[in-house]
Amino acid sequence: MNATSPSPAAGPSYAAPVRPAAGFLPASKIGLVAMVGRGDPDVIPLWFGEGDLTTPAFINEAANRALAAGETFYTWQRGIPPLREAIAEYTRRVYGIACGPERITVTGSGMQAILLTCQALIGRGDNAVIVGPIWPNIVHCVELQEGEPRQIDLAFDGANWSLDLDRLFAAVDERTRLIFVNSPNNPTGWTMPSEMQKALLDFCRERRIWLVADEVYARLVYDRPVAPSFLEHAGPDDPLIVVQSFSKPWAMTGWRLGWVTSPDSFGDLLAKLTQINTSGSPAFLQHGALAAIREGEPFLAEMVERCRVGREVVLQGLARFPRVRIARPEAAFYAFFGVDGMDDSLEFAKRLVREAKVGLAPGTAFGDGGEGYLRLCFASAPERLQRAMDRMAPLLS
Amino acid sequence: MNATSPSPAAGPSYAAPVRPAAGFLPASKIGLVAMVGRGDPDVIPLWFGEGDLTTPAFINEAANRALAAGETFYTWQRGIPPLREAIAEYTRRVYGIACGPERITVTGSGMQAILLTCQALIGRGDNAVIVGPIWPNIVHCVELQEGEPRQIDLAFDGANWSLDLDRLFAAVDERTRLIFVNSPNNPTGWTMPSEMQKALLDFCRERRIWLVADEVYARLVYDRPVAPSFLEHAGPDDPLIVVQSFSKPWAMTGWRLGWVTSPDSFGDLLAKLTQINTSGSPAFLQHGALAAIREGEPFLAEMVERCRVGREVVLQGLARFPRVRIARPEAAFYAFFGVDGMDDSLEFAKRLVREAKVGLAPGTAFGDGGEGYLRLCFASAPERLQRAMDRMAPLLS
Repeated sequence: MNATSPSPAAGPSYAAPVRPAAGFLPASKIGLVAMVGRGDPDVIPLWFGEGDLTTPAFINEAANRALAAGETFYTWQRGIPPLREAIAEYTRRVYGIACGPERITVTGSGMQAILLTCQALIGRGDNAVIVGPIWPNIVHCVELQEGEPRQIDLAFDGANWSLDLDRLFAAVDERTRLIFVNSPNNPTGWTMPSEMQKALLDFCRERRIWLVADEVYARLVYDRPVAPSFLEHAGPDDPLIVVQSFSKPWAMTGWRLGWVTSPDSFGDLLAKLTQINTSGSPAFLQHGALAAIREGEPFLAEMVERCRVGREVVLQGLARFPRVRIARPEAAFYAFFGVDGMDDSLEFAKRLVREAKVGLAPGTAFGDGGEGYLRLCFASAPERLQRAMDRMAPLLS
Repeated sequence: MNATSPSPAAGPSYAAPVRPAAGFLPASKIGLVAMVGRGDPDVIPLWFGEGDLTTPAFINEAANRALAAGETFYTWQRGIPPLREAIAEYTRRVYGIACGPERITVTGSGMQAILLTCQALIGRGDNAVIVGPIWPNIVHCVELQEGEPRQIDLAFDGANWSLDLDRLFAAVDERTRLIFVNSPNNPTGWTMPSEMQKALLDFCRERRIWLVADEVYARLVYDRPVAPSFLEHAGPDDPLIVVQSFSKPWAMTGWRLGWVTSPDSFGDLLAKLTQINTSGSPAFLQHGALAAIREGEPFLAEMVERCRVGREVVLQGLARFPRVRIARPEAAFYAFFGVDGMDDSLEFAKRLVREAKVGLAPGTAFGDGGEGYLRLCFASAPERLQRAMDRMAPLLS
């Protein structure tokens, strides 16, 4: 089957055969909704996972200084040494654990960290057990590697999201190469409790399965300074790969910089993969990231406050709609809400763009279990969010 | 075999199994040489494929302006529209052909363009026929995809490099998904003649095999304004993927920006792959690239002149050593020279670092056929190159 190009029904025709695993990648469902509103300045765009603040000036200035100083050559695959040291220091400061720079690898975004990790771990016939609902790209990374994604969804009881760990364990077999957990979770805001993290890491250690923890929302929490991290239970040689990103805490989505905390040997493997993926991240951008992680706590505090206010506007707005059910998100910057009677979230999201001029993400973008839900990013100005809530009233009431 | 981790002999042990195709990736041979000289400021580093000039100020300033203007959000996977339009315009201007922006995709380096192309085309059991000697990363991309690289080397007759096209065709079979040609060639400087390009493209069109042309040195030529391009023979729907880069012509190696010219449908496939690799390249960096391609001809002319002078210094220097054989490079910025009696180029390159304080790349980094050769990058100040030539005399005489 490998030798054939996708059938015409599956998409475009090509001048010569392409690999089915690539040709069959689906279009982004968020992208399909965004396409409806493309070029319409009246649409309030709350569909993507980013806020409306630009990167703060102190970060830009640090990057500019490095650029002017001539940091424009090839650089270290695992990241410039001062940034790796600063991230290790940040890890010690935020989590109160031991962590040296040999466990840190800078990547060209959290997304790239996940892709590289899948390149490192997943081949044909392997599988990855993934806690859902989940950002779709992770599933697609596994599929691109010709592995099998096994998504185990959180359950929603009308008030809270919860994970049945036994169901997760039951999905694991001898070809499971990794278990993927995004906590705090995009889209639900669910956060895995610390004791559950310990139990899951114990399981992975015993079974020799990599635990890949996407903790990019670790600092966007509303009732404590930081979300529980698997790092708090792990030694330096445990099979744990924690993915973090500069994007969300420091309004740097457009910079494409993230990092991985892992055993040193796995970081070296990431470096070899980086060499043939992008060869590394621009050194002068890494100097911006260095400023963010060293001096970024005041901005982060503002960011969290802004999101906290946005969360209240959205929760109060949604409370007016009897068709809507939602768990109060304790972290991340999304409202993921169910709408009674909505049986096609993709079509409904397109209608919201056309009729209400509000851009949301359809729940099915996060797996089939997301049908019936919509995701709204509340990292925006409160008046903008209020306007969106008002506009949606005719369709959600 | 997929379920096992690499044997201890193959490298480090891991906390849990890694994918063999990733775990077995070899260390960079250039990196092994560079490690010998790491931290020694006396070493003259001519091992990497970059010059000693920093990015020109007009490019930096354009990026700074976009950064200050708040271009710090997620952006278009295929690149910002003005950059795609400017690259199409550049293509029309430089090659005198029709080309619209729908054929252009911006990538996070030429390297990433090649990796994405391999993700798109190569799976287990497929093969790629590659003209060598060649930059090793291309071979490793094919291996990471569990494909088989089939390297057909240029022949050196003591004065010139040449390709036997019939040998290349004979390596093709029904599982060949792409033919990879880097012209002008790193490391030899060999440039495929236009009539041979036409014959090869005709072959690929007829056999429905993708022709992947790495033309990143297209503008670094010494006897004409631009090297012959496969683009001059191709229509918009031919199975041709041309990889270009901002790195070499505009001293932007550290920016990680390149582009692909391909059929529109293949560009859309690259966009889907980009979504799950890095999600796109920073928009503010793309504004720097926009300045480079629109206003970069004067700098490029200086760059070519600098390389032309460097080439003469190196060729005259090498001519003093009777053990050395070299073809006068008509393009790119490397001297790839054979040394009579040198049977281990990796060890010899390490000795050059230790004893002569000069950093070169070993020929075997470019395939087994590169044994007996060394690569020197002459995109440096002439006095620096002269000093390197003098220092090498005791080992090369």
